[in-house]
Amino acid sequence: MNTVAAVADFRTYPLISALANAQVLADQVRVQWADGRGSPFHHQWLRDNCPCPTCVYSVTREQLLEIVDVDENLTALSAHIDQGFLRVEWHGGHSSRFDPGWLRAHAYDDESRAERRAAKPTSKLWDSRFELPVFEYAALMEDPKALLQWLLALRDSGLTQVRDVPVEPGSLALIARRISFIRESNFGVLFNVQSKADADSNAYTSFNLPLHSDLPTRELQPGLQFLHCLVNDANGGESIFVDGFAIARALREEDPEAFRALCEIPVEFRNKDRHSDYRQLAPIIALDALGEVAEIRMANFLRGPFETSVEQMPLVYRAYRRFIAMTREDRFRLVKRLNPGELWCFDNRRTLHARNAFDPASGARHFQGCYIDRDELLSRILVLQR
Amino acid sequence: MNTVAAVADFRTYPLISALANAQVLADQVRVQWADGRGSPFHHQWLRDNCPCPTCVYSVTREQLLEIVDVDENLTALSAHIDQGFLRVEWHGGHSSRFDPGWLRAHAYDDESRAERRAAKPTSKLWDSRFELPVFEYAALMEDPKALLQWLLALRDSGLTQVRDVPVEPGSLALIARRISFIRESNFGVLFNVQSKADADSNAYTSFNLPLHSDLPTRELQPGLQFLHCLVNDANGGESIFVDGFAIARALREEDPEAFRALCEIPVEFRNKDRHSDYRQLAPIIALDALGEVAEIRMANFLRGPFETSVEQMPLVYRAYRRFIAMTREDRFRLVKRLNPGELWCFDNRRTLHARNAFDPASGARHFQGCYIDRDELLSRILVLQR
Repeated sequence: MNTVAAVADFRTYPLISALANAQVLADQVRVQWADGRGSPFHHQWLRDNCPCPTCVYSVTREQLLEIVDVDENLTALSAHIDQGFLRVEWHGGHSSRFDPGWLRAHAYDDESRAERRAAKPTSKLWDSRFELPVFEYAALMEDPKALLQWLLALRDSGLTQVRDVPVEPGSLALIARRISFIRESNFGVLFNVQSKADADSNAYTSFNLPLHSDLPTRELQPGLQFLHCLVNDANGGESIFVDGFAIARALREEDPEAFRALCEIPVEFRNKDRHSDYRQLAPIIALDALGEVAEIRMANFLRGPFETSVEQMPLVYRAYRRFIAMTREDRFRLVKRLNPGELWCFDNRRTLHARNAFDPASGARHFQGCYIDRDELLSRILVLQR
Repeated sequence: MNTVAAVADFRTYPLISALANAQVLADQVRVQWADGRGSPFHHQWLRDNCPCPTCVYSVTREQLLEIVDVDENLTALSAHIDQGFLRVEWHGGHSSRFDPGWLRAHAYDDESRAERRAAKPTSKLWDSRFELPVFEYAALMEDPKALLQWLLALRDSGLTQVRDVPVEPGSLALIARRISFIRESNFGVLFNVQSKADADSNAYTSFNLPLHSDLPTRELQPGLQFLHCLVNDANGGESIFVDGFAIARALREEDPEAFRALCEIPVEFRNKDRHSDYRQLAPIIALDALGEVAEIRMANFLRGPFETSVEQMPLVYRAYRRFIAMTREDRFRLVKRLNPGELWCFDNRRTLHARNAFDPASGARHFQGCYIDRDELLSRILVLQR
């Protein structure tokens, strides 16, 4: 018999309820918990998830077993509770032992699944009255607890400010790397937001930029965007933010037909210069598997001509105009001027940002920016929460 | 009146057919082409796409106009053909001029849309008899035409080999950057595939690795994967490839219920170590808007426990086993040993790759790898094709 480990993971699973009983049925082992819940586990599922060192490599905690190498009709010879663990003996000689905390965390009876769905973090929507979460650079650099609070605010509200950041060019990278590596793009690892004569995007002019997400021209828009103010002596150039999820919810209630059109009719976004030609065809509002708004994709200055049937075109314009008009409504807008040593960090796939026009003749203006993906944010949160 | 440009783009649009006539109707301008086609363009659409320097910034070729700032009931005062261009005068005083090649390329009558859909590149599926497209390093580094041929093979077939690559560590970056910047991950910019005692993935052991895509644990799996052989003195370790799109098509024909289950039931993939904890819930087969297979996500050693309803669980196992069994069928598999100075470059979201176990005691084995996204591949192709 193998030495048996309990969990093929780096996490710990608290004991929610003790195992009370286990019964072998034709296609499953039925587990009874001390708190009354019953959880069926198919034989295949249990064999597939055996955490023993033959089935899972103990260094990487990655599976070596492939379930296709096990007879599809394999059944348990016996199942019983052994020192609090579920122990299963298999026909043919293998033996598996399951930690009760892990087993409860992965039970797939209806009640357990509903419980986990309800425990998932949900977005806190905001409007013009939003109390901006503000964090101190020094605390984020030193204190993992402060870092976690910042990352949770980013995940749940999608807009934060950090203060007292050094104003040397490149210091943005120091705080970004407290989360993870930076996501490079065709604009570089760190990009400089300054007015340039040979601009390859309207972002690098002094023009007003309407509310938008960055890089809607890519299959995956960057998850987090950082904008760090080094110099801001020019008149104008205030930052404006709206919660795109809040606008999408309002649109869904106030004009369901327009909402559906923006979810269903894809739009091409384009960014082109002499060295690159990016195009992406995708809807403006993306929903997740449960039908909740998961992403906003929007930048009028990067949008290609609408392409849909002649019959649908008037609806597309009506829906698009309605969404843009809502981003201009005072009820949704937060307007703030960023000062040197301050930075915005926000969810680029949720929080749309804009800039008022500024007067380059009135003084210098220099921001630096970079991106990090949602994957890195969520991974860092999970590691800090261990 | 404004000076008027013809195209808000860096591309050129060949003249397919001359404009013959234009007629202003209540909600649209109806254009008649010399080859007989009729294309309606709504007033909104034409005004939105005006390429004049007031509406589009000539340096970036990005739009300054926001259509929401134009009256939603605006109509054309007149429309006529002027030196081959469509000229529209608007109520209120603006004037627009449209290049006939551009206009035809963006016409949205049914016939024009069907024509464009039919012209889109399609995947060339392959099996064990695939004639591997092989390219020479020196040609790719010097000749834009050879480079384009390589990139088209990657886009359409999803598997290529490059030969006579220098075997100095890091040379992989030189050829990757002929396409674009490299996509970093938690495994670095270039990763070293070697057997390590403290492996943070089974990839960094000497074990057999079953057919998989890399980083299914991320929202966007890397588009292109490079694997460059520097040293290969160990026994074993052959590379194996299958065309995941070909397997998906065969599964769709041979077992539609299993195919649907893999498209609809999401699976969690996990990569976790002491410093990171990535998880992604997504289906194994992703379809595009037209119902065509667009992506395969698969790595048994990174898969979490299946979570679905008790009723569906047997179907999930049946479908998963069937797919894995198909990846093992000889009809689909290409098996080749990579020699020093050779590299694989393949579509990581289509072409699954595997490695036979090798014996680290029999000799050294050192590969380097990196990733580039599909966005960069497609952008580079478009620029080379200009």
